[in-house]
Amino acid sequence: MDFKSYIRVVPDFPQPGIRFKDITTLLKDGPAYKAAIEELTTFAREVQADVVAGPEARGFVVGAPLSFAMGIGFIPVRKSGKLPYESIKAEYNLEYGKDALAIHVDAIQPGQRVLIADDLLATGGTITSTIKLIEQLGGVVVGAAFLIELSYLEGRQKLGDIPVKSLVVY
Amino acid sequence: MDFKSYIRVVPDFPQPGIRFKDITTLLKDGPAYKAAIEELTTFAREVQADVVAGPEARGFVVGAPLSFAMGIGFIPVRKSGKLPYESIKAEYNLEYGKDALAIHVDAIQPGQRVLIADDLLATGGTITSTIKLIEQLGGVVVGAAFLIELSYLEGRQKLGDIPVKSLVVY
Repeated sequence: MDFKSYIRVVPDFPQPGIRFKDITTLLKDGPAYKAAIEELTTFAREVQADVVAGPEARGFVVGAPLSFAMGIGFIPVRKSGKLPYESIKAEYNLEYGKDALAIHVDAIQPGQRVLIADDLLATGGTITSTIKLIEQLGGVVVGAAFLIELSYLEGRQKLGDIPVKSLVVY
Repeated sequence: MDFKSYIRVVPDFPQPGIRFKDITTLLKDGPAYKAAIEELTTFAREVQADVVAGPEARGFVVGAPLSFAMGIGFIPVRKSGKLPYESIKAEYNLEYGKDALAIHVDAIQPGQRVLIADDLLATGGTITSTIKLIEQLGGVVVGAAFLIELSYLEGRQKLGDIPVKSLVVY
């Protein structure tokens, strides 16, 4: 399926000069959304994930259905201050801006094989922080799955040997 | 399945006196999460939904897999300023606080049967705003599905004739 044709490019959002990749036009198309998640599910099986972690909020619309399709757990990685229970934090740089991510201390069991899911791989800042949090809890990151990869930002290079799957590449 | 046993109650979050219902302990259990979404999918079929809308961020972890299970589209309802394309807004009161929700102007086609999905029905503020946005776009809200309902806050009464399904009631 030509997933790129379902993605809308919005110029100058959230800042002048940025051509934002809007996935809502993919999500609202039932068959396209389902096909996208199914293709990522094939990848999740290949890397033998036994849990999926996704950074908020758009990571949830990729990671949560992927968990459901696999019948495995979903771990929300959230902005600092949003998780109710005891958490650990990691700061990260966005493509535009800065923030901190957090994960519950009991979210992952040592040795669990974790697949990270998000909508977009840009500079890789969000993902490297997510990896750091997972590894601090003893999890093993076995893959990273994205709807979109902005290859010119070279985020993939930051992920080392971790297998990466992205459905649409710009 | 006894879904309540998978939910963790965290005292004094986000404010003193609030006993926060933490769904992350349900989400991380693959079989329990899958069973929860499947039960809501049965409801989505009964009300003949042809699209699911969910408010960010926890509404995404319920609505997105529900969309996937149904093979229908998912519409993210987001905090004001987060959606990249032309949007309409509605203010709402939280159980604790105030905020504004937004939806893309082309998210829903007139006449579409929309199921709203969220983690929690509390006072109903988020949901009544979501209904307002959907109806402004000409959508028909055919149901509202939740993991948890805080019945003592009487949010259900605010939803009028809209069928409501909640898996766990406090």
